[in-house]
Amino acid sequence: MGSTYGKIFNISTFGESHGKAIGVVIDGCPSNLDFDEAFIQEQLDRRKPGQSRITTQRKEGDSFQVLSGVFEGKTTGTPIAMVIFNEDQRSKDYSHIADSFRPSHADYTYSAKYGNRDYRGGGRSSARETAARVAAGAVAQQVLKGLGIEINAYVNQVGRLKLEKSYQELDLSKTYENAARCPDEDMAQQMFDYIDKTRKKGDSIGGVISCVAKGVPAGWGEPVFDKLHAELGKAMLSINAVKGFDYGSGFDGTELYGSQHNDEFYTDDQGNVRTKTNHAGGILGGISSGEDIYFRVAFKPTATIMVDQESVDKDGNAITVSGKGRHDPCVLPRAVPIVEAMAALVLVDFYLRRKAEG
Amino acid sequence: MGSTYGKIFNISTFGESHGKAIGVVIDGCPSNLDFDEAFIQEQLDRRKPGQSRITTQRKEGDSFQVLSGVFEGKTTGTPIAMVIFNEDQRSKDYSHIADSFRPSHADYTYSAKYGNRDYRGGGRSSARETAARVAAGAVAQQVLKGLGIEINAYVNQVGRLKLEKSYQELDLSKTYENAARCPDEDMAQQMFDYIDKTRKKGDSIGGVISCVAKGVPAGWGEPVFDKLHAELGKAMLSINAVKGFDYGSGFDGTELYGSQHNDEFYTDDQGNVRTKTNHAGGILGGISSGEDIYFRVAFKPTATIMVDQESVDKDGNAITVSGKGRHDPCVLPRAVPIVEAMAALVLVDFYLRRKAEG
Amino acid sequence: MGSTYGKIFNISTFGESHGKAIGVVIDGCPSNLDFDEAFIQEQLDRRKPGQSRITTQRKEGDSFQVLSGVFEGKTTGTPIAMVIFNEDQRSKDYSHIADSFRPSHADYTYSAKYGNRDYRGGGRSSARETAARVAAGAVAQQVLKGLGIEINAYVNQVGRLKLEKSYQELDLSKTYENAARCPDEDMAQQMFDYIDKTRKKGDSIGGVISCVAKGVPAGWGEPVFDKLHAELGKAMLSINAVKGFDYGSGFDGTELYGSQHNDEFYTDDQGNVRTKTNHAGGILGGISSGEDIYFRVAFKPTATIMVDQESVDKDGNAITVSGKGRHDPCVLPRAVPIVEAMAALVLVDFYLRRKAEG
Amino acid sequence: MGSTYGKIFNISTFGESHGKAIGVVIDGCPSNLDFDEAFIQEQLDRRKPGQSRITTQRKEGDSFQVLSGVFEGKTTGTPIAMVIFNEDQRSKDYSHIADSFRPSHADYTYSAKYGNRDYRGGGRSSARETAARVAAGAVAQQVLKGLGIEINAYVNQVGRLKLEKSYQELDLSKTYENAARCPDEDMAQQMFDYIDKTRKKGDSIGGVISCVAKGVPAGWGEPVFDKLHAELGKAMLSINAVKGFDYGSGFDGTELYGSQHNDEFYTDDQGNVRTKTNHAGGILGGISSGEDIYFRVAFKPTATIMVDQESVDKDGNAITVSGKGRHDPCVLPRAVPIVEAMAALVLVDFYLRRKAEG
Repeated sequence: MGSTYGKIFNISTFGESHGKAIGVVIDGCPSNLDFDEAFIQEQLDRRKPGQSRITTQRKEGDSFQVLSGVFEGKTTGTPIAMVIFNEDQRSKDYSHIADSFRPSHADYTYSAKYGNRDYRGGGRSSARETAARVAAGAVAQQVLKGLGIEINAYVNQVGRLKLEKSYQELDLSKTYENAARCPDEDMAQQMFDYIDKTRKKGDSIGGVISCVAKGVPAGWGEPVFDKLHAELGKAMLSINAVKGFDYGSGFDGTELYGSQHNDEFYTDDQGNVRTKTNHAGGILGGISSGEDIYFRVAFKPTATIMVDQESVDKDGNAITVSGKGRHDPCVLPRAVPIVEAMAALVLVDFYLRRKAEG
Repeated sequence: MGSTYGKIFNISTFGESHGKAIGVVIDGCPSNLDFDEAFIQEQLDRRKPGQSRITTQRKEGDSFQVLSGVFEGKTTGTPIAMVIFNEDQRSKDYSHIADSFRPSHADYTYSAKYGNRDYRGGGRSSARETAARVAAGAVAQQVLKGLGIEINAYVNQVGRLKLEKSYQELDLSKTYENAARCPDEDMAQQMFDYIDKTRKKGDSIGGVISCVAKGVPAGWGEPVFDKLHAELGKAMLSINAVKGFDYGSGFDGTELYGSQHNDEFYTDDQGNVRTKTNHAGGILGGISSGEDIYFRVAFKPTATIMVDQESVDKDGNAITVSGKGRHDPCVLPRAVPIVEAMAALVLVDFYLRRKAEG
Repeated sequence: MGSTYGKIFNISTFGESHGKAIGVVIDGCPSNLDFDEAFIQEQLDRRKPGQSRITTQRKEGDSFQVLSGVFEGKTTGTPIAMVIFNEDQRSKDYSHIADSFRPSHADYTYSAKYGNRDYRGGGRSSARETAARVAAGAVAQQVLKGLGIEINAYVNQVGRLKLEKSYQELDLSKTYENAARCPDEDMAQQMFDYIDKTRKKGDSIGGVISCVAKGVPAGWGEPVFDKLHAELGKAMLSINAVKGFDYGSGFDGTELYGSQHNDEFYTDDQGNVRTKTNHAGGILGGISSGEDIYFRVAFKPTATIMVDQESVDKDGNAITVSGKGRHDPCVLPRAVPIVEAMAALVLVDFYLRRKAEG
Repeated sequence: MGSTYGKIFNISTFGESHGKAIGVVIDGCPSNLDFDEAFIQEQLDRRKPGQSRITTQRKEGDSFQVLSGVFEGKTTGTPIAMVIFNEDQRSKDYSHIADSFRPSHADYTYSAKYGNRDYRGGGRSSARETAARVAAGAVAQQVLKGLGIEINAYVNQVGRLKLEKSYQELDLSKTYENAARCPDEDMAQQMFDYIDKTRKKGDSIGGVISCVAKGVPAGWGEPVFDKLHAELGKAMLSINAVKGFDYGSGFDGTELYGSQHNDEFYTDDQGNVRTKTNHAGGILGGISSGEDIYFRVAFKPTATIMVDQESVDKDGNAITVSGKGRHDPCVLPRAVPIVEAMAALVLVDFYLRRKAEG
């Protein structure tokens, strides 16, 4: 229970990190959509391990195959199943952790909940599962592109290194040009060096990803519980290692007075109702206003580190978990396409719900 | 669409601020639960307007009645309908805003979405709707109390006034003893004065509520999408005026190294697996670990202020929205029981989902 | 759990037969719909008890009030709550059955399931609950009328009395002109007499209702599980006392050869694809074809009879349940608007899902 | 939309008859269940084509593979993905129907709905999709077996050939011993001959499958909409070619008086509340009573026949659809395991919902 997302554009992901395959079934994708396999693969490649020396060296081609729902290059409106077979099943790397609870991993809680788990790596709790989300999200992005909507995420902070520019001051088309996934070249280099230094220490570091969606028309979102930002928040928080979410003025806005924070309306040259400022982050009362939607996603430092840590085994005995193998010193760079994917899945679902309103 | 929450303990709220009534139907409440009407009313009273001079002076008794689902003091397992009739329907107060889009309110987006809205006050987007949540949440809290689970929220920050103590250093039973809803008496007084000063200026201010749930056993939460913190985040973000959510180390944790952030496991005297620290906020991999669950909720300053603001009407004409009438200079104090209610609704739903796991 | 229906046009009903009120919340009704209270009351009146001597003499005005979601005569797109307060709470009539399990009633199974029940009458299992469905269904019918869709149900069989005419041979506008709810006057009289004779014997009798929906365009229904006829079947089977459902050729069609049963396509004068016959009942592969949708609903004889029956009490002791009080000798006449309501709820939901397909 | 079933034990099927693969993802299967691959394959073999000369000669091994959710022979509580790759992709057989609407097939309605379809065979509307259901249902059956619940379906009627015995008079363990899937040997032979004769004429014939579930305890089912029989009805009606469903006394019971139909309660030797008769079919008020659950499912004659038929193409032009290739003269024998699978999926979902009731 819990591996499906979306009311209309509904996805079900499956698969463990060291099982036969991971994948996703999309039920509710509109028919007659041009199915752009190259774009899906491109997004998957942006998430896959081994892209640079600041990502894990686990080797996965992450090439996917479509099993259903697409015919002669177009979606048929029936469920689209996509599968990625796991190539790098080096199970022995993980055998030493079969009975151990690694600190800040989900080993213990999965055991407490299910009483049984695929102990070869993170199993279902591995970030590997997010590849399935990226594939599904790429399909959602194709739907949104057809509506003129663009989603851009980027790394905004690594540890204490913070990009002080707002998204308006950045050229978001540059994000994927560097390994740090930061559109500001100087900051990207600093982040890269910082992560690399952290990697060499065998440690890991957290950070923040920002995301902007441009072109969303007014009227998307379903109060009172399925507010647009509430679903965005849920979707982001469901990504591995995410600890926080805010949108618009967010946590910073809590320090402002209403007279500073309120966004006054005006009518622009084209006769559209607009706001002079956008502390709202493009969402009022849980419904898109037509302004840019922007939000932040906080990631904790990767739990896997190359340092010895105290812990217990499944029988409660004290043990030492020694760090070895491969790990991501910072999940942020690889998480950028995941944030974009989840944002797209949320937005496309609200787009279709909006259509259902009659 | 969007006015229901919960997979098993499912609630549907209804009602506009100036309509006949607001209410909620709970479908999926366990049977044979002692139905504590006094506690429900107590929670409603903590949310209701007019409690002190730092809350709106709108007069609402907020007394509820039960229409179904309870027999001889116990729940029957059938839907529980609770209704609060609106008493204070001073519609003329609001007539001047029938065609106006008030800045940072949902007037514009509701119009864009529905093309029709109850313009007497906030209508469905009014925080008045949250009374229905508080009533339903109080029932959920009764279920949780029977399991030894306690939920305590409190005001942690108002504007730049921040309580620097952690929840462990506070006596959370004192929260409701003051109008600011802060368990630290000194800080409570400072907050009260600050809010009152803001009120006198006709302005409003934001802040942060913290919440702790104690006694949740390991194993609640449904990866990969319905992670415990993801649903908590969605539930909190669905509350009016909320702009952000984080749990455990949250946004602050992004600056830490893994070696600082990881929570090492140990076995306590009773043989329970515990962690030495709790940066995780009691949740690992989206599943409760048995440690305290704690999180923060960021609120923007109230949109209604007693200051003139530029805006447009429904035809796009420039207008001035003048502040008059009643407003909350700071929503935080009244939002404390709402945060508790939503936390309870999330937790009770996961409790029941956990039972369904076979 | 289980008191909600519909994916987009979602209803939640609540209420016990002898509680304070019954009612329904509709979440997902399109905005800007003219809200025809008179039509809702008309349908409620067609279901209410005491209409003729062949229905129960329980007295209920069944007048409803709208608590939310309607403003200035139009729907606002927010939840519509409608409530009917119970007037005739003659609880003492039912006190003798507090501990008894009446044969073929749900007393025993509700007790087994919930361990607690409102024993004053049928409680939640009473057909009184269907009044809430009729109110919600009437709103759905208003949406469908705007699309040119008409739904007509009628009593087709009472006991062994069967109307041998097909719906095409009948003037369905006459159904509500008689107490038997049969559009054929002769048969209506025979049915009335038969039911009345049964009533005098203190017994009850079953029957069949037929229903036709005209004007449904091709393309509604969601394979593979939410086929149009599968949802119609579920909706009909959820009505009290229903034991069976078939559509198109139904059970009779099982005896035919494919060469007899297949409906050949042709193009009509307007260029529409049509079928020469309609054994399909207007549904192919779970999707509407544009032909008339027709189906049958089988009802068992009312469980309440004025005859002594053997049974047991809640402690398993043998008892005699004596029939007294008021009962419907045949539920069919009053069930006609319920069948129409449920059909409308199914169709409007598929209409909105169709719109969501992008 | 529409390819998922179940609230807790949730399945999503995918795949077209002539695409790369069909399959299913189960989300919500209890963990630690012994995963019996042999039984799954056995049920698939009972459904697969080419078993005897009265089934289609299409060749499909229907061997499945598990991609996730099972570890060391046990379920892990995470999604179970099972895939069956299509072997017999003789697409050219179907090229002549690319633009044709075959009578009583779903070609036309899928085109009307989606504007695009995999025209190689039935695509998504093909009964081939039911193999995925059988695989998922076999997992559900394993859960139920652990609870002592047994589900047995059998062919009860083919055309006008009807088995006049009740299920109590039959040895249901013999059903799969013959190609007709009828536990009565004599009748099985008659049915076989009848179907074979129909096949030789190039025609097809309908029929009825009966199903019995023994061992279901009292208390399963969720009124008022998700009644046990309502979900059974929906599940059965969602199977290809099904036209009707009834349970207990069903359509026949409509002719009875209440005094004949009511099932009187008594207490048996073990102190259990039982009924003397079981017209209820084991379900009262939508909740299981502890008695045997039994129901009937009506199937129309197969739409594919070897006879020329009039029809139209996608442009509305009159055409002749000539029968050629392979077809099932009667779907009933192969549908027996499908009925069992769907019954198991319904029951296991209610079992888990029952557990969630607190």
